[in-house]
Amino acid sequence: MTEKYSDYTVPGLAKENGHEVAGLLQGRLHALNDLHLVLKHIHWNVVGPNFIAVHEMLDPQTELVRGFADEIAERIATLGGAPSGLSGELVDSRTWKDYPLFKADAVTHLAELDKVYSGVIEDHRDVLGKVGQIDPITEDLIIGQVKQLELFQWFIRSHIERS
Amino acid sequence: MTEKYSDYTVPGLAKENGHEVAGLLQGRLHALNDLHLVLKHIHWNVVGPNFIAVHEMLDPQTELVRGFADEIAERIATLGGAPSGLSGELVDSRTWKDYPLFKADAVTHLAELDKVYSGVIEDHRDVLGKVGQIDPITEDLIIGQVKQLELFQWFIRSHIERS
Amino acid sequence: MTEKYSDYTVPGLAKENGHEVAGLLQGRLHALNDLHLVLKHIHWNVVGPNFIAVHEMLDPQTELVRGFADEIAERIATLGGAPSGLSGELVDSRTWKDYPLFKADAVTHLAELDKVYSGVIEDHRDVLGKVGQIDPITEDLIIGQVKQLELFQWFIRSHIERS
Amino acid sequence: MTEKYSDYTVPGLAKENGHEVAGLLQGRLHALNDLHLVLKHIHWNVVGPNFIAVHEMLDPQTELVRGFADEIAERIATLGGAPSGLSGELVDSRTWKDYPLFKADAVTHLAELDKVYSGVIEDHRDVLGKVGQIDPITEDLIIGQVKQLELFQWFIRSHIERS
Amino acid sequence: MTEKYSDYTVPGLAKENGHEVAGLLQGRLHALNDLHLVLKHIHWNVVGPNFIAVHEMLDPQTELVRGFADEIAERIATLGGAPSGLSGELVDSRTWKDYPLFKADAVTHLAELDKVYSGVIEDHRDVLGKVGQIDPITEDLIIGQVKQLELFQWFIRSHIERS
Amino acid sequence: MTEKYSDYTVPGLAKENGHEVAGLLQGRLHALNDLHLVLKHIHWNVVGPNFIAVHEMLDPQTELVRGFADEIAERIATLGGAPSGLSGELVDSRTWKDYPLFKADAVTHLAELDKVYSGVIEDHRDVLGKVGQIDPITEDLIIGQVKQLELFQWFIRSHIERS
Amino acid sequence: MTEKYSDYTVPGLAKENGHEVAGLLQGRLHALNDLHLVLKHIHWNVVGPNFIAVHEMLDPQTELVRGFADEIAERIATLGGAPSGLSGELVDSRTWKDYPLFKADAVTHLAELDKVYSGVIEDHRDVLGKVGQIDPITEDLIIGQVKQLELFQWFIRSHIERS
Amino acid sequence: MTEKYSDYTVPGLAKENGHEVAGLLQGRLHALNDLHLVLKHIHWNVVGPNFIAVHEMLDPQTELVRGFADEIAERIATLGGAPSGLSGELVDSRTWKDYPLFKADAVTHLAELDKVYSGVIEDHRDVLGKVGQIDPITEDLIIGQVKQLELFQWFIRSHIERS
Amino acid sequence: MTEKYSDYTVPGLAKENGHEVAGLLQGRLHALNDLHLVLKHIHWNVVGPNFIAVHEMLDPQTELVRGFADEIAERIATLGGAPSGLSGELVDSRTWKDYPLFKADAVTHLAELDKVYSGVIEDHRDVLGKVGQIDPITEDLIIGQVKQLELFQWFIRSHIERS
Amino acid sequence: MTEKYSDYTVPGLAKENGHEVAGLLQGRLHALNDLHLVLKHIHWNVVGPNFIAVHEMLDPQTELVRGFADEIAERIATLGGAPSGLSGELVDSRTWKDYPLFKADAVTHLAELDKVYSGVIEDHRDVLGKVGQIDPITEDLIIGQVKQLELFQWFIRSHIERS
Amino acid sequence: MTEKYSDYTVPGLAKENGHEVAGLLQGRLHALNDLHLVLKHIHWNVVGPNFIAVHEMLDPQTELVRGFADEIAERIATLGGAPSGLSGELVDSRTWKDYPLFKADAVTHLAELDKVYSGVIEDHRDVLGKVGQIDPITEDLIIGQVKQLELFQWFIRSHIERS
Amino acid sequence: MTEKYSDYTVPGLAKENGHEVAGLLQGRLHALNDLHLVLKHIHWNVVGPNFIAVHEMLDPQTELVRGFADEIAERIATLGGAPSGLSGELVDSRTWKDYPLFKADAVTHLAELDKVYSGVIEDHRDVLGKVGQIDPITEDLIIGQVKQLELFQWFIRSHIERS
Repeated sequence: MTEKYSDYTVPGLAKENGHEVAGLLQGRLHALNDLHLVLKHIHWNVVGPNFIAVHEMLDPQTELVRGFADEIAERIATLGGAPSGLSGELVDSRTWKDYPLFKADAVTHLAELDKVYSGVIEDHRDVLGKVGQIDPITEDLIIGQVKQLELFQWFIRSHIERS
Repeated sequence: MTEKYSDYTVPGLAKENGHEVAGLLQGRLHALNDLHLVLKHIHWNVVGPNFIAVHEMLDPQTELVRGFADEIAERIATLGGAPSGLSGELVDSRTWKDYPLFKADAVTHLAELDKVYSGVIEDHRDVLGKVGQIDPITEDLIIGQVKQLELFQWFIRSHIERS
Repeated sequence: MTEKYSDYTVPGLAKENGHEVAGLLQGRLHALNDLHLVLKHIHWNVVGPNFIAVHEMLDPQTELVRGFADEIAERIATLGGAPSGLSGELVDSRTWKDYPLFKADAVTHLAELDKVYSGVIEDHRDVLGKVGQIDPITEDLIIGQVKQLELFQWFIRSHIERS
Repeated sequence: MTEKYSDYTVPGLAKENGHEVAGLLQGRLHALNDLHLVLKHIHWNVVGPNFIAVHEMLDPQTELVRGFADEIAERIATLGGAPSGLSGELVDSRTWKDYPLFKADAVTHLAELDKVYSGVIEDHRDVLGKVGQIDPITEDLIIGQVKQLELFQWFIRSHIERS
Repeated sequence: MTEKYSDYTVPGLAKENGHEVAGLLQGRLHALNDLHLVLKHIHWNVVGPNFIAVHEMLDPQTELVRGFADEIAERIATLGGAPSGLSGELVDSRTWKDYPLFKADAVTHLAELDKVYSGVIEDHRDVLGKVGQIDPITEDLIIGQVKQLELFQWFIRSHIERS
Repeated sequence: MTEKYSDYTVPGLAKENGHEVAGLLQGRLHALNDLHLVLKHIHWNVVGPNFIAVHEMLDPQTELVRGFADEIAERIATLGGAPSGLSGELVDSRTWKDYPLFKADAVTHLAELDKVYSGVIEDHRDVLGKVGQIDPITEDLIIGQVKQLELFQWFIRSHIERS
Repeated sequence: MTEKYSDYTVPGLAKENGHEVAGLLQGRLHALNDLHLVLKHIHWNVVGPNFIAVHEMLDPQTELVRGFADEIAERIATLGGAPSGLSGELVDSRTWKDYPLFKADAVTHLAELDKVYSGVIEDHRDVLGKVGQIDPITEDLIIGQVKQLELFQWFIRSHIERS
Repeated sequence: MTEKYSDYTVPGLAKENGHEVAGLLQGRLHALNDLHLVLKHIHWNVVGPNFIAVHEMLDPQTELVRGFADEIAERIATLGGAPSGLSGELVDSRTWKDYPLFKADAVTHLAELDKVYSGVIEDHRDVLGKVGQIDPITEDLIIGQVKQLELFQWFIRSHIERS
Repeated sequence: MTEKYSDYTVPGLAKENGHEVAGLLQGRLHALNDLHLVLKHIHWNVVGPNFIAVHEMLDPQTELVRGFADEIAERIATLGGAPSGLSGELVDSRTWKDYPLFKADAVTHLAELDKVYSGVIEDHRDVLGKVGQIDPITEDLIIGQVKQLELFQWFIRSHIERS
Repeated sequence: MTEKYSDYTVPGLAKENGHEVAGLLQGRLHALNDLHLVLKHIHWNVVGPNFIAVHEMLDPQTELVRGFADEIAERIATLGGAPSGLSGELVDSRTWKDYPLFKADAVTHLAELDKVYSGVIEDHRDVLGKVGQIDPITEDLIIGQVKQLELFQWFIRSHIERS
Repeated sequence: MTEKYSDYTVPGLAKENGHEVAGLLQGRLHALNDLHLVLKHIHWNVVGPNFIAVHEMLDPQTELVRGFADEIAERIATLGGAPSGLSGELVDSRTWKDYPLFKADAVTHLAELDKVYSGVIEDHRDVLGKVGQIDPITEDLIIGQVKQLELFQWFIRSHIERS
Repeated sequence: MTEKYSDYTVPGLAKENGHEVAGLLQGRLHALNDLHLVLKHIHWNVVGPNFIAVHEMLDPQTELVRGFADEIAERIATLGGAPSGLSGELVDSRTWKDYPLFKADAVTHLAELDKVYSGVIEDHRDVLGKVGQIDPITEDLIIGQVKQLELFQWFIRSHIERS
């Protein structure tokens, strides 16, 4: 078997602090990996008169979330950890279930996806509170992700809201 | 719950045949989804003097494999199925375990990745033999994927081969 | 008047075989020329709340179908034939009527267009069966077109399907 | 305070004529500045199942209208005037009220926007009739803008029309 | 069956005038649709030592003419009409026959194409005279097309002219 | 009339807090909308030997400020508010007057614009202090804007400063 | 020697009318050829503190004027004439002298260039009046050029005007 | 000396089968390497009135053929062979002579090149028949090359054919 | 001699605070200028089997660091200081020596460069702590730089770490 | 009147030497200015079956020659001279006449253009011999131009040569 | 058979001198054609842990060398010769043997390739000395090639050198 | 410590000659490294009415000079030397002082920069005379740099020259 921690963390930070932050980020990495799989899953299973608009709206978001996963994983490694991108570990450690829908119309999917986003954002904000004490660089990275995730959630909510 | 099959398949094919092919492709979709997660995992965990070359070699392949997953999933939908891109279903139905390495040098990772590729390609060629009887369009799609997967496996093998 | 057949076909094929395949492809060329005119016609006549999404979804498909017509026509010429792209000959030889709708909403148009696609794809698959015996190059070209036409038909069907 | 008129106009035109045309164009500049603010306002406030399609349809039009404002303002300057792009002057001199809606669905917004476009186009055509006698260059510039504004109004109308 | 006229035309124009212009433009739409089919037909059938130059010269012109058809059709819709892009209606209503040549050398084709262009341009100029009274926007649109069609006809004529 | 607040705010924030931040941002949206109108106004009215350099320097800044307005408005909507982009509301609620100059040379305009920027930046920093307590995401967004606004103000000041 | 007129003009125009317009355009071609040479001459000879701004401002205008010369020349050919782009004929037939300055500062050059533009634009407007009776296509082409030439003259004038 | 075969072939194929296919492909690699050298040779030596058209027509084809050589060579390596790209081995093993022409006009060169293409295509189709039994991936790769080679041969034939 | 401080700082900040921050940033500017010189120095002097990978890995980082120097210098100026980019002042005021290696292999260079990065990052984090009290805009700017510098240090460390 | 010489030349060269080279280059500037006018003239007047190929072949060369004129003129200025780009001075000082042809076919024009190129190149080589003694920078600049002019002359000659 | 020499050479050079230089360049053309075949050969046959870095490093160099062959060949033609790009003539006239390696690791291949480069560069410098007396244009062309070949040889040497 | 000379130089040159040229180039590398630092320094410190024009004019030149430093350094390495890019060695070995200005207006900075350029160019021309005897490749490289440096110096001089 291979090691999970290097003997360093970033300069100017105590090693145990750096590794603690890396540990908190691992949960965020699993969440983001699951999220981009779900976004693709909906991309393939949405039906009904708004098919094409929703189908195309999801792809740039998928790209963004995949980039966020990469950013988190490389931060873990930078802090001296060994990021896990493995599906088995993801499923074992997550606190939520598989997304429940297959073929369904746009509004049904978006209402469900809204819940997924609320979960991811709440957990991001939770980790944000914890890492802010220790490492302002990681804090800034998470703020940047929350900003984009909340913006996209507004897209979703705008579809399902009625004036 | 939502439906998993539409009432149609592609024109000129019996519905049961179309749905059978869709069923075979679902296994390939899980394999490709797992493969692109593994490629990213190695991208983050490789260390040693060949770090940067291997780190960068994996990204275009990740992009390719993500595109293959998309192509397979949309073919399933075209044939009247409802593609599953969910991590829980992936882990439940797969016949292999999580990738075993974290931090390791390039040659160790590539030797392990070579085995992963052998598994994916053999299963792709196996499905190729089955769908070729029924649907030449799906057959052609899988041939195109195998061609690229084998080419990339040659990249891997060239690294670990000694003259 | 000008000639309709050259004195050659592709190397390695009997001239009468090459010219027979060219003859089968002429029907496909008329079908594709009519199809891209119809796609534009819908692009201009769709109305109602999903106007812009459908209006824009049709244009890349129009480009694709125009490219397919070009590909078929140049294959006819390569095989030694003289491709006809003339509207009068198209209308005289076709086995279907003008597309029946003008101003109509998206779902009505897409339901009608779904039928047009079923017709084109069935005839493509029919010619596929015939040329496969004689010329694997033409067979491969038609497989590539059917793959894309079926994918786009899935787009159409996803709009009119209800979960 | 700074001057509002230069001592020249374009060659071949009497100075008072040039300045008169500049005066007529000032009203059009206010109208276009208000129009691009309104387009953004709707872009932010539209809700419901057609959210993304309408949200994205408005942005290229905003760009176009901003370009038209620039074109009109530089024509005013070219004719020897000093174009006003100020919000206070805009509101003081305009003959219409603020756009009445905030959060509303696509069809409600587009029906309101259709009225805004009718107003802008009618006033453009009115000025067109007046400047055509004096300056064919300005006439041509306005013709070009009306062409685009009418085309976009057709987009709006296609959404709210039912077959 | 679906409707052919909306209950509106562009602001500032009487509805019967707008619809009359739309009617005149329908003939131009059929002419341009036929023209781009003919340009492709020649692209495929030209032979002899100037093959490649003529083959490549026609493609940008095909693109241009397809864009003109789009522009005319969207103007018809803007004016409240329902543009017909259907091949059957095209062939029924046109006043000319199918293009007469198949395989022929460049000069023979270009001499024939010169006649086609003379026909299209004369009819465009004829409609130009009629719509100029009613709608300066449509007039300007047709002027723009004639300018480009004449320029390309000069290309053709330069080929077949001898000093 | 249409509603001004949705029944939600971003996950992890109390609704009244989210709506309070949205209210503070509305003032910033009006300021930025006025600022980009002023930048264009100067772009059109600057004269004298430095005309082209200043004329061109303002356009990228206009683009930036328009993007900032968009960013603020979408944050308001994300927080559950209904952003107002209307000129009438802007003029009613602002605490400053119309920009005072028309035709003037570069240095005179830039000295005046320097004051405008000081006003906008001070108000931004003021809101920054208030929202920082409540929502780190909005805080980060405003910091990013202040950074750019101050950088551009340095450009302005470098022009009017003498060594 | 080679011929100067073809035996045709554009369809729908009497040959003598077409050739008369071509004759009028020849003067404009010489003027534009001289103008782009002068613009480059100033580009090389301007000195003083505004060197770089003026040096760079002239190049896009040179490109534009070269494009106008091309457009006029191809219109002459389209109308059946043989455009002269020769320097000897230019100098023999022109009614003005060589531009008088070499090394000089920006304001001195721009004041001189302003006169050159006044000359070119007046002659363009003069020909515009004459060709408008005969050929609306050429009229529109010249209108388009005057619009741009006047706009650039405003650039020049803005430099030399003082508020 | 270095080895010519690895100890592996692609997954799912017997090693002796994979190496047999690699052996057949070596002949195709020599043929394609010779073909792109010949295409350049003609590019440099063609003269006469069609010089530029032929000179430019050959370059994209050279690029294509160089890409085909690369594709074949990497397939050989993927199958476990060691591709030879050496000129000495090429000349020793080929069954044809050097291209016979130097300076000559376009038609003479193209007639000679037509023969070269017939040779290459016939041998490609011959290998196609043999590998199709063993490896559908290699079969598909060769079909794709034949399609393009035949299309380009049609270009050549269109030049030398007379109607 | 010329002045080193302007009479202003950014709006909303006391002048002595702004100038104090500018002073702290001057040290960071020297460090970044030295760093991009060192990155190029290694780019030229690295040898051994990993030459090309390391040679190319350093160039994007050089670009990044040059951009950081620019960003810091323009922030100093924005705050009212006069940034020094002079090599003599750099060498006089720095607390470290010249980089010690010339020709050496990749691992030796990267181990040395790792130390350089630790120095730069620690000093950046040190200044971060000081400016955070005074100016959140500058704080944000430094956080963004540290994030990238740490990421690149992870690249370096991954090369020299052994699993 | 304005001055023709500055009080400097390039560092390391005697002022009289620099100005002498500038004087020799003035003749080359007139030759290149006349050449690009002639290339456009032929572009407009070529007729016959090779029209489009020659028409298009000349435009990149026109761009190149315009760039050469710019390069020579800026070298004159760099050496302290005041480059003349004026048509009157060009015609007065040149040693050749206007290009003799108008409408003519490709071969006739190219044979004439071949002579023009021989003249320009011989004079360039003549100046090359003279400046080589004095200024290696100017020598290198002229070598670069001759290389391109000779290459293009080969294009011309290849068209008119018969095997 | 076709001719090997035209009746001309470049203006300002004696025909026998031009043809002598063309003769010397023919040897360089064979060397460069062989070199780009060898570069591809290594690209396919390199193995071991530095596979991907070397595999990718060779491709831009292959492109460069192919461009050099083109440049030399077109110079031969410009000088009046008929360049030979034929593999048979290459092998007959060369003074070296086929490259000796197939599958081998990076360092072994690069040590061998270093010798190939030494041979090509020495012969280039030898011809440089001879043509410099006769034709400065050809001299400059070869200098440019040697510069790039030596730079790439440094890449090779840096890999195999140990500090 | 690491070595400063390899055991080779370029093929066809005596090793001591190659190393002597490398030694001469080291001085040029220090000069260019200092020059691009100075260009940035002025970019940050220029003030007054021509700020933006000069600020922007310097950046492309900075890019160019950085590229020249790279080119010189890689030539040193190609010749077998170990290029020094270190700031300490630069300052120790240079024969000039730090650039004397901070905040100053454009004309003052450009007059000072003119002197810097005279110094760099004179030293470049001096080395040019020495290496020309030994190595024509290095000679050509320096000629190319002087050409660009002199051209940019003309830009500077044009700003400070008065007609």
